[in-house]
Amino acid sequence: MTTIRVLVESDLRATVGLGEQELDAIEAVYPLISAGVGSMPPIMRIDVPESNGEIDIKSAYLPGHSGIAVKVSAGFFDNPARGLPSLGGLMMVFDAETGIPRSALFDNGYLTDLRTGLAGAVAARNLAREDASVAAIVGAGAQARYQLEALTLVRPIELAKIWARNRERAERYAAEMAERLGLEVVAVSSLDSAVAESDVVVTTTPSTEPLIEQSMLHPGLHVTAVGSDAEMKQEIAVDALARADRFVCDSIAQSSRLGELRAVLASGLDMSVVELGQVITGEEPGRVSDDDITVCDLTGTGAQDTAIASLAVERCDLSGAGITIET
Amino acid sequence: MTTIRVLVESDLRATVGLGEQELDAIEAVYPLISAGVGSMPPIMRIDVPESNGEIDIKSAYLPGHSGIAVKVSAGFFDNPARGLPSLGGLMMVFDAETGIPRSALFDNGYLTDLRTGLAGAVAARNLAREDASVAAIVGAGAQARYQLEALTLVRPIELAKIWARNRERAERYAAEMAERLGLEVVAVSSLDSAVAESDVVVTTTPSTEPLIEQSMLHPGLHVTAVGSDAEMKQEIAVDALARADRFVCDSIAQSSRLGELRAVLASGLDMSVVELGQVITGEEPGRVSDDDITVCDLTGTGAQDTAIASLAVERCDLSGAGITIET
Repeated sequence: MTTIRVLVESDLRATVGLGEQELDAIEAVYPLISAGVGSMPPIMRIDVPESNGEIDIKSAYLPGHSGIAVKVSAGFFDNPARGLPSLGGLMMVFDAETGIPRSALFDNGYLTDLRTGLAGAVAARNLAREDASVAAIVGAGAQARYQLEALTLVRPIELAKIWARNRERAERYAAEMAERLGLEVVAVSSLDSAVAESDVVVTTTPSTEPLIEQSMLHPGLHVTAVGSDAEMKQEIAVDALARADRFVCDSIAQSSRLGELRAVLASGLDMSVVELGQVITGEEPGRVSDDDITVCDLTGTGAQDTAIASLAVERCDLSGAGITIET
Repeated sequence: MTTIRVLVESDLRATVGLGEQELDAIEAVYPLISAGVGSMPPIMRIDVPESNGEIDIKSAYLPGHSGIAVKVSAGFFDNPARGLPSLGGLMMVFDAETGIPRSALFDNGYLTDLRTGLAGAVAARNLAREDASVAAIVGAGAQARYQLEALTLVRPIELAKIWARNRERAERYAAEMAERLGLEVVAVSSLDSAVAESDVVVTTTPSTEPLIEQSMLHPGLHVTAVGSDAEMKQEIAVDALARADRFVCDSIAQSSRLGELRAVLASGLDMSVVELGQVITGEEPGRVSDDDITVCDLTGTGAQDTAIASLAVERCDLSGAGITIET
């Protein structure tokens, strides 16, 4: 007999968000990943070709965390034609000391959106200029919203320029986020000039063609790429990465398979790459001058899932949120 | 917004059991595995050395099945010292057409016990002599109980001999199962003579040393090994496997890493091995004479989990069992 706390999206939205504690919890995982502490196996993937779908499973054990999250993400790309969202999933949390199931989190992807947004803030906090005040956001979906709001936690953002293939979505984003954040947010038609006029750029697209070209870079720029999480995706041109003074990945192992590093390796170019955890601890330098160009590739790790889910379940245990079930 | 059916062990015990339909559902997966139909990635494993524990994740997509199960099994071997069971886990079921979460199954391991028992019956149905009436069961735990009951579904078992390291547990097993099944069930002190006098043997132990030696084999015998599911485990001596007329695995890929086949490969011996699915379809011969010695190694597959969980969720959708949650 075990007591399971069952949490749904509204419980989780009321419990964890884009806050300082959440940011610190996410930042703390990267040094553990880079030190090889704990256990984070490669992503498990189940292909469902008949439905144009796939299920991905991420997990990690991290010492010092109360839980071990197992996250199941589904991407079924024929769903929109049926009026259903293409992405979905849930997390399960197991007690890190006993392995006993503690909680089922039916979050509809909220925790993934949140921890991904927070990862963007961690990247900016460690790599962008301290005085970065102008941001360019590439893409106008849910993650583009999280990324901009997360940036405001760590840098004095005053102006955000939104570029998306669909101009109408960019306009809607600008209106919505200007109101929500009390910033100047504008939809722009030229990605080139948006990047040229920005201190920090975040790309949030499923693009399979590079969007950020070498010619767009300028001294002082920081770029975070959060879109690529699959073999065919790429947001940043290899020569742009080569031009950067510092290229940082959340996980070199994952980025070599699924992230921007994959294209670098395929190109045969010899490029220095370090992990975000090494920059956070100071083991490797990050930005060393205001004129450096820095790039961070975030593929998203099971360690982040374990960190955010552990925090959420601890808080819900205290507040009594959700319902409990006796197995 | 998604509706999730939450099921606990009692719901599942009332819904699926050692029955003909369940047996057929499990038997149907092996030809799919052997044909490489669907998608069954290797087991994902998260080590938790600080707690002497590990979490294993199995999953499979099988065409023609309504669900995709993701099973998380935890084995934390310091738990008994805290008065907690060392094994636990749960399953999640996702819609195979849309990837949308359908059900959370807090089964306390029941479905794994059940599908493992059924796999033993599938092995016996395809490999043991038709007239097998005497069974030897090695081990006296939960799975030893499932295996004997499952055997009675497919062969005219009249007498079962139980051998376990702990004689007292074997005696308790014998008394309990004799009453439950209406058979003669006796605890025995000699494994050698139990095997010598049996038509079918099922080993259900976590042994790391072979229990079944070549000298114990006799014409007509069938042995099913269900215990080995990890690198260090072994129930059958390699020379006993070499002596068998037919050596069959549920999954050659898994058995080479975690099952009896691992020791064979380590020994360097060249041995013919086929998959259970190939025997079921007739692509490879199974038992061709009443005097053949046959061995089947079952490591347990995500495909079985998907089959039993899909069946359970379909039935619970019809009966309305469990509770539903709106995410």
